[in-house]
Amino acid sequence: MMVTFEELQSFLAEQFPQGARYGTLQELGDGWAEMKLEVAEEHLRPGGTVSGPAMMALADVALYAALLGKIGLVPLAVTSNLNINFLRKPVAHSPIRARASMLRVGKTSGVGEVYILSDGLEDPVAHATITYAIPAQR
Amino acid sequence: MMVTFEELQSFLAEQFPQGARYGTLQELGDGWAEMKLEVAEEHLRPGGTVSGPAMMALADVALYAALLGKIGLVPLAVTSNLNINFLRKPVAHSPIRARASMLRVGKTSGVGEVYILSDGLEDPVAHATITYAIPAQR
Amino acid sequence: MMVTFEELQSFLAEQFPQGARYGTLQELGDGWAEMKLEVAEEHLRPGGTVSGPAMMALADVALYAALLGKIGLVPLAVTSNLNINFLRKPVAHSPIRARASMLRVGKTSGVGEVYILSDGLEDPVAHATITYAIPAQR
Amino acid sequence: MMVTFEELQSFLAEQFPQGARYGTLQELGDGWAEMKLEVAEEHLRPGGTVSGPAMMALADVALYAALLGKIGLVPLAVTSNLNINFLRKPVAHSPIRARASMLRVGKTSGVGEVYILSDGLEDPVAHATITYAIPAQR
Repeated sequence: MMVTFEELQSFLAEQFPQGARYGTLQELGDGWAEMKLEVAEEHLRPGGTVSGPAMMALADVALYAALLGKIGLVPLAVTSNLNINFLRKPVAHSPIRARASMLRVGKTSGVGEVYILSDGLEDPVAHATITYAIPAQR
Repeated sequence: MMVTFEELQSFLAEQFPQGARYGTLQELGDGWAEMKLEVAEEHLRPGGTVSGPAMMALADVALYAALLGKIGLVPLAVTSNLNINFLRKPVAHSPIRARASMLRVGKTSGVGEVYILSDGLEDPVAHATITYAIPAQR
Repeated sequence: MMVTFEELQSFLAEQFPQGARYGTLQELGDGWAEMKLEVAEEHLRPGGTVSGPAMMALADVALYAALLGKIGLVPLAVTSNLNINFLRKPVAHSPIRARASMLRVGKTSGVGEVYILSDGLEDPVAHATITYAIPAQR
Repeated sequence: MMVTFEELQSFLAEQFPQGARYGTLQELGDGWAEMKLEVAEEHLRPGGTVSGPAMMALADVALYAALLGKIGLVPLAVTSNLNINFLRKPVAHSPIRARASMLRVGKTSGVGEVYILSDGLEDPVAHATITYAIPAQR
């Protein structure tokens, strides 16, 4: 790995000054990362279910973490494609977690997948595949 | 159309009490809708660019508006798949707009596409295709 | 499981009379299936690499097999969405395999993911997520 | 445009020696192309409907044509992501057409969208968004 858990945690805090709104880093491995989102009022849709955009944002940042763990702290890596399938309703007011792992890390792009889990449910509530473009000049 | 501009506007305000954070309805036609997001601090990534999740949220709600304009105010319609390609960097601090149109409206699902535009740029900054699941009991 | 390996094998042979062109069933489990494609001239692009459409067709039929193993022999189940990322070049002239597993099987749709592997390579050459629409009248 | 209709037609014939199986070029413009597939037995599923893989292959090659019209005859451009939504059943035994247009052509990748039409139907039968990776050394 190119970065430690603490280095990545600090970097994400700088990049996302909105704080824990997009989730917090829980674990970091070689090509994978886990993030957790404490569901707040702003993440909900009427009826108490976690909104799609909240899950998409969590998936996006979790794969960003997994990628940076592999390539180092490249601030200009940007999402180029995101595909997400929403599978089932998360448990109301339960935290959600994203388990992100890289499928391929190349010179100009990285591709990975993310399972979104809801505490209290065994099966994933969503699944995403995401491509990040990596800038040439790093 | 099943609903008027004003009816849909009120419905979205109820469904998204966070207010203008996900954008505001600009126009509504038969199978299409346009929404606008005034970019605020919370929608930005470092460097002043609009975040991916802000664009995904806008695309999602814009197609929801286009769908509800066709099928009426069905609160339980939920996104089942979203695919988005980020094409170019939006103009910093400019409003972004989503032009959503339905490709198919069936009994149990609706599929459409969304162009995300940035005021000041001619070409789209992102393009999404989204599927909504429509509940049977409506 | 609703069907046996032999029942599904016969069903696929009827549905795809073009024979082994889309691959052959290797294994069938509860919510998953594995298929294998012996790469022939028609599956190649110049340079000897397996064509994208050959991999998409294999992924599509492999998830169809995994779904039918769960819901029974429903001939009218049709693909509604397919998303595929091509990750690396398959080994020239080596067989390719698809490992398909369901992420969700509902009443009107099933969603799953497929890893495409190339004999001789450890990492997947492609990854797909696919949604099948299941007809109401079965 | 970097290439003429005739140059691209010859190039595609070399690249796809299987001939008209993936469709034939009909029109070529600045950033767009139209291809047509005469539906044959091998493109059908039981019941006489055009198979998903036949439509995916046509979409893939049509966007390849649109891209090459823009960047010149780069044989090593390869599909990196393809997302397709199947919208409605094509007319049995009718030709299908793909209208492909580029949304973005960059140095290392090109993104576009494709509408699949079935002769005799006004609305599209499928819609795809596709990313091509463009090799650096051209």
